[in-house]
Amino acid sequence: MSTPPATAAILVIGDEILSGKVEEANIPVLARALRQLGILLRRVVVVMDDVETIAREVALLSREHDWVFTSGGVGPTHDDVTIEAVAKAFGVRVVASPEMEAMLRAHYRERCTDGHLRMALVPEGATLEVTEEVRWPTIRLRNTWLMPGIPEVFRMKLPVVVARLAAAKATPFVSRAVYVKMDEGELKALLDRVVAAFADVSVGSYPKWLDPTYRTKLTFDGRDETRVLAARDAFVALLPPGEPQRIE
Amino acid sequence: MSTPPATAAILVIGDEILSGKVEEANIPVLARALRQLGILLRRVVVVMDDVETIAREVALLSREHDWVFTSGGVGPTHDDVTIEAVAKAFGVRVVASPEMEAMLRAHYRERCTDGHLRMALVPEGATLEVTEEVRWPTIRLRNTWLMPGIPEVFRMKLPVVVARLAAAKATPFVSRAVYVKMDEGELKALLDRVVAAFADVSVGSYPKWLDPTYRTKLTFDGRDETRVLAARDAFVALLPPGEPQRIE
Repeated sequence: MSTPPATAAILVIGDEILSGKVEEANIPVLARALRQLGILLRRVVVVMDDVETIAREVALLSREHDWVFTSGGVGPTHDDVTIEAVAKAFGVRVVASPEMEAMLRAHYRERCTDGHLRMALVPEGATLEVTEEVRWPTIRLRNTWLMPGIPEVFRMKLPVVVARLAAAKATPFVSRAVYVKMDEGELKALLDRVVAAFADVSVGSYPKWLDPTYRTKLTFDGRDETRVLAARDAFVALLPPGEPQRIE
Repeated sequence: MSTPPATAAILVIGDEILSGKVEEANIPVLARALRQLGILLRRVVVVMDDVETIAREVALLSREHDWVFTSGGVGPTHDDVTIEAVAKAFGVRVVASPEMEAMLRAHYRERCTDGHLRMALVPEGATLEVTEEVRWPTIRLRNTWLMPGIPEVFRMKLPVVVARLAAAKATPFVSRAVYVKMDEGELKALLDRVVAAFADVSVGSYPKWLDPTYRTKLTFDGRDETRVLAARDAFVALLPPGEPQRIE
């Protein structure tokens, strides 16, 4: 490939994930969306609801990746510290967005509390990202998107991210797979030959337990479809009679 | 509480998780087990199958936590680099374990390949952890446990970890919850009062969408049950008539 793919990292914020009370549901959704956009998700970190920890992590991740996505901690309560932490990471203040405040007042009307208005706070310099379909804003500061932790709201806002990043869309990743009954120990020598010959294709090997139809799934991933197919076919050509069980 | 809880971190290794091809399934299982052991899971990191990245991460995490658990990358193929990376993190060599080699030869018999025997490699100085029930060893180097990525095998080996860590078992965490129809904006002022009065209780607030029975779940967590119950009850006492919907 001519250019390396853009890179991304996800920072999940939430004591509830680390304590096992809630199962994280946003990572796989965002991982698949990034893959389709041709963006390489290189790192995921899950941390507690702590301003210093989040700020340090955002500062690091945003320097080392093209895009960073935080998930969680954007509500109005005491455990929602992501806005403050992201502001700190970039060395900016937290300010009230007049635009957000107007939206919140219009939405909550006479029920509107100081608690609700806390959701108008943004890191100074942040952009409020919307699309025609998703009018409630998603906060972005430079390369860092502040996504909500609630899975339903995360999914609702994801099209905004996709629309924005699709503008810079690179070649998407192609993935092919081969299923065999051989185990990884038997496959190693064959795989090593394919890996050596196709440095630009990422070859994965995943044992499956308790499936009668195959024992190992081999995946071939890359952004050049011709090379991906050539690697897959080179591997299949090395297999003994009776294999593979299935090709995708 | 007299002593702070022991801390833990999980390092998940796997391109397949980051590419969205496979949904991670070990984190919630280990998170719940650690919670029951009274161990605070403070950080989770997911990285690609890259020796340098994994080694750097293990070196950091093992310095900053009492226990570290890696998940994935312990099979025999080219993408299984965790053993090498953990050895590198602790500055030791990779050596063949005669004990593991004997077990592998006994298991695979005449089918045993060099690929299979690669699974006898361990970081020098590693302990092979077993229990009466789980005889296939789990590799531990100092405070770092090398767990398999395959969820079925991970679950199979988890009792070994639990048995070993239960010996040092601290006071487990206690968790209570209150469900209300108020939203977070309305709750903020009340919550702030409880948070200020109970510094030793961790108070969480989780909005729920699309549930007709409540709008926000409040959690009260700590290792001193008396204080957790007192915090919960102090919060309930502040609620207006008609609340809460449910107490746990």
